[in-house]
Amino acid sequence: MLKDCLEQVRKTTPLIHNITNYVTVNDVANILLACGGSPIMADAQEEAEDITSICGGLNINIGTLNERTIPSMFLAGKKANQLGHPVLLDPVGAGASRLRTETALNIIKEVNVQVIRGNMSEIKTLVLGSGTTRGVDADISDAVTDENLKESVEFVKKSAKALNTILAVTGAIDLVSDGETCYVIRNGRPEMGQITGTGCQLSGMMAAYITANPDNMLEAAAAAVCVMGVAGETGWQQMREGEGNSTYRNRIIDAVYSMDGEALEKGARYEIR
Amino acid sequence: MLKDCLEQVRKTTPLIHNITNYVTVNDVANILLACGGSPIMADAQEEAEDITSICGGLNINIGTLNERTIPSMFLAGKKANQLGHPVLLDPVGAGASRLRTETALNIIKEVNVQVIRGNMSEIKTLVLGSGTTRGVDADISDAVTDENLKESVEFVKKSAKALNTILAVTGAIDLVSDGETCYVIRNGRPEMGQITGTGCQLSGMMAAYITANPDNMLEAAAAAVCVMGVAGETGWQQMREGEGNSTYRNRIIDAVYSMDGEALEKGARYEIR
Amino acid sequence: MLKDCLEQVRKTTPLIHNITNYVTVNDVANILLACGGSPIMADAQEEAEDITSICGGLNINIGTLNERTIPSMFLAGKKANQLGHPVLLDPVGAGASRLRTETALNIIKEVNVQVIRGNMSEIKTLVLGSGTTRGVDADISDAVTDENLKESVEFVKKSAKALNTILAVTGAIDLVSDGETCYVIRNGRPEMGQITGTGCQLSGMMAAYITANPDNMLEAAAAAVCVMGVAGETGWQQMREGEGNSTYRNRIIDAVYSMDGEALEKGARYEIR
Repeated sequence: MLKDCLEQVRKTTPLIHNITNYVTVNDVANILLACGGSPIMADAQEEAEDITSICGGLNINIGTLNERTIPSMFLAGKKANQLGHPVLLDPVGAGASRLRTETALNIIKEVNVQVIRGNMSEIKTLVLGSGTTRGVDADISDAVTDENLKESVEFVKKSAKALNTILAVTGAIDLVSDGETCYVIRNGRPEMGQITGTGCQLSGMMAAYITANPDNMLEAAAAAVCVMGVAGETGWQQMREGEGNSTYRNRIIDAVYSMDGEALEKGARYEIR
Repeated sequence: MLKDCLEQVRKTTPLIHNITNYVTVNDVANILLACGGSPIMADAQEEAEDITSICGGLNINIGTLNERTIPSMFLAGKKANQLGHPVLLDPVGAGASRLRTETALNIIKEVNVQVIRGNMSEIKTLVLGSGTTRGVDADISDAVTDENLKESVEFVKKSAKALNTILAVTGAIDLVSDGETCYVIRNGRPEMGQITGTGCQLSGMMAAYITANPDNMLEAAAAAVCVMGVAGETGWQQMREGEGNSTYRNRIIDAVYSMDGEALEKGARYEIR
Repeated sequence: MLKDCLEQVRKTTPLIHNITNYVTVNDVANILLACGGSPIMADAQEEAEDITSICGGLNINIGTLNERTIPSMFLAGKKANQLGHPVLLDPVGAGASRLRTETALNIIKEVNVQVIRGNMSEIKTLVLGSGTTRGVDADISDAVTDENLKESVEFVKKSAKALNTILAVTGAIDLVSDGETCYVIRNGRPEMGQITGTGCQLSGMMAAYITANPDNMLEAAAAAVCVMGVAGETGWQQMREGEGNSTYRNRIIDAVYSMDGEALEKGARYEIR
């Protein structure tokens, strides 16, 4: 049950080490607190392993990667592997620069990553060596639609198997697969794309979900996607005349803060393929 | 028409490369999305040129410049010049430290900058080699007022000509000039100065405006100033008892998100000198 | 009177140099503006001393410290000492990594720090060489309660004397002492801990308070704690159905923005021991 995954996060307050970008970092910290987790942000090589060691899980986000923080991603990732902590990778903008593509590929090669969450363009870049990323957003030609759903599910399953990880590919329709099973999730609103960092926020929250549910990571990853989508819907319902993306950002985090297991079960719209 | 400039942004969704400070970066990203643009933040030397190449315009903001990001500003700026992409410079805090003043002056020297947006103290520092900057805010002695308006307009025109760029000097009265013509704009509210980063936000948005209106950059820059000012007025009208600068920040971005060409034309208060 | 401390900030608009983390930096800037101060964020070694020189006070926060910014903390701290500017240290996460603990201890050793503000786990780490920090949050075993209040007050007084600084130890009950006198403050709400950066915000604001009240730093530090706590209470009263930690963050900063001396005196709940 998705509900159990949510409650497990609130019960265990997983401490998550985030090496993430400075654009959306504050929202990532606040959504981690909203969902019941506890965030720590630290990207210095000198402390990466120490911080990983006191945490329960690791969230690596390459959004504003640089020569100083990239080595920290590897140090923290390897330490998390040693300790058996789950690692989530958000390959922000893979395909937009060689540095991003290569860094993401190297992380996958050198670190045992439990979940990769990205948009379809980023995932295609990692799997096929090419995607049509438009900056940090997915290219419209990569969108998962009802028309290409069957092929998309097959692609995500095959890719998850090839990468030996859970893949969470988010967009209008979200696909979450461990290579065998695929959640097809239809929550959320298109306006979420007009807020910076809803993807980063989801990654942070998902790291808490898989950390709190180590024996059930596929469902936990899917649950996090549903939480974000349901929060996007709830937050939108509360929008008032004249409000826009900045207030919507607050309302989504607020909705995560207020969500309980019942509301999640009631709001989640998904099928398993 | 200002209206056409706004609609052109919404129609073309210009992708803007931002090398900007970590203080206000999230608000810059959100206002870029609010106005119809698309932001990407990237400041590593290893990817600066790659990212510039996939974008349409470049926004350089020296707010928290450092030895790692300064070279990226030059790499990105020169690449943008090669590709014919517009470059906007926001010389945050020029005059507050030698590093800021010299970096801003070097960028102007080595990069062909289409627009410089700053407060009067920053602009005086660049043009006269001295200003009376108070940290990142303009000194009150530099304010454009009705009393010194004529001289201020002449100074901005002359400076724009000398620097061979469009100058957008913002404050209680905003002046935007290409050296020949000067927009004198009287939108906005003094309370906008009690929010961190309204200047940075305007610069990000202005980069989208000039990118979407390459043949009409002066008007586009003036339109962005009017959008910000009208949003400041609209956002203020919606403030409720007990709300302050943090909520006002959200309301301004929300107002940009909601603004259409009609509202802009109706709200803009300017004359051309 | 706390009231006088508040009014002194609004009257003098102290300019504060912040070397702080990128997680909560925007909120720190906005709360500094809200309380009547003026923020500048700058962490490059090349300008650290220049920026300190034009400011009135310095706020050092080690939240996302790294090899580039640590030297700036020392440069700025020593320059502030030379100029007689007050220095506040927020030892975020001391105890969570050797880097944080050692950096905080070295700053205390090499820089004359007027105020240290942290949670009890961080302070114990600095004073006793060990604490039970849980990431960036205090461990529950370190909480100040009515049961251990007497011992806690003695510990904070003794520690302040040993460190030769004012200590502001915040939590459910806040203790602020210069070694002789101790303010015991009972404002605030537990939900403030579910917002990232309320501690960082308080440190930024406290730097403005001690800068504006140089002859009265103990009371100024206590006043800042009361302002934050009263704002937390006022902000909470304005929360509406469905709102959570993201909106609460805005409401707290808004409440600081709106607070005057009367409201502070009326709302502050403290005793002096």
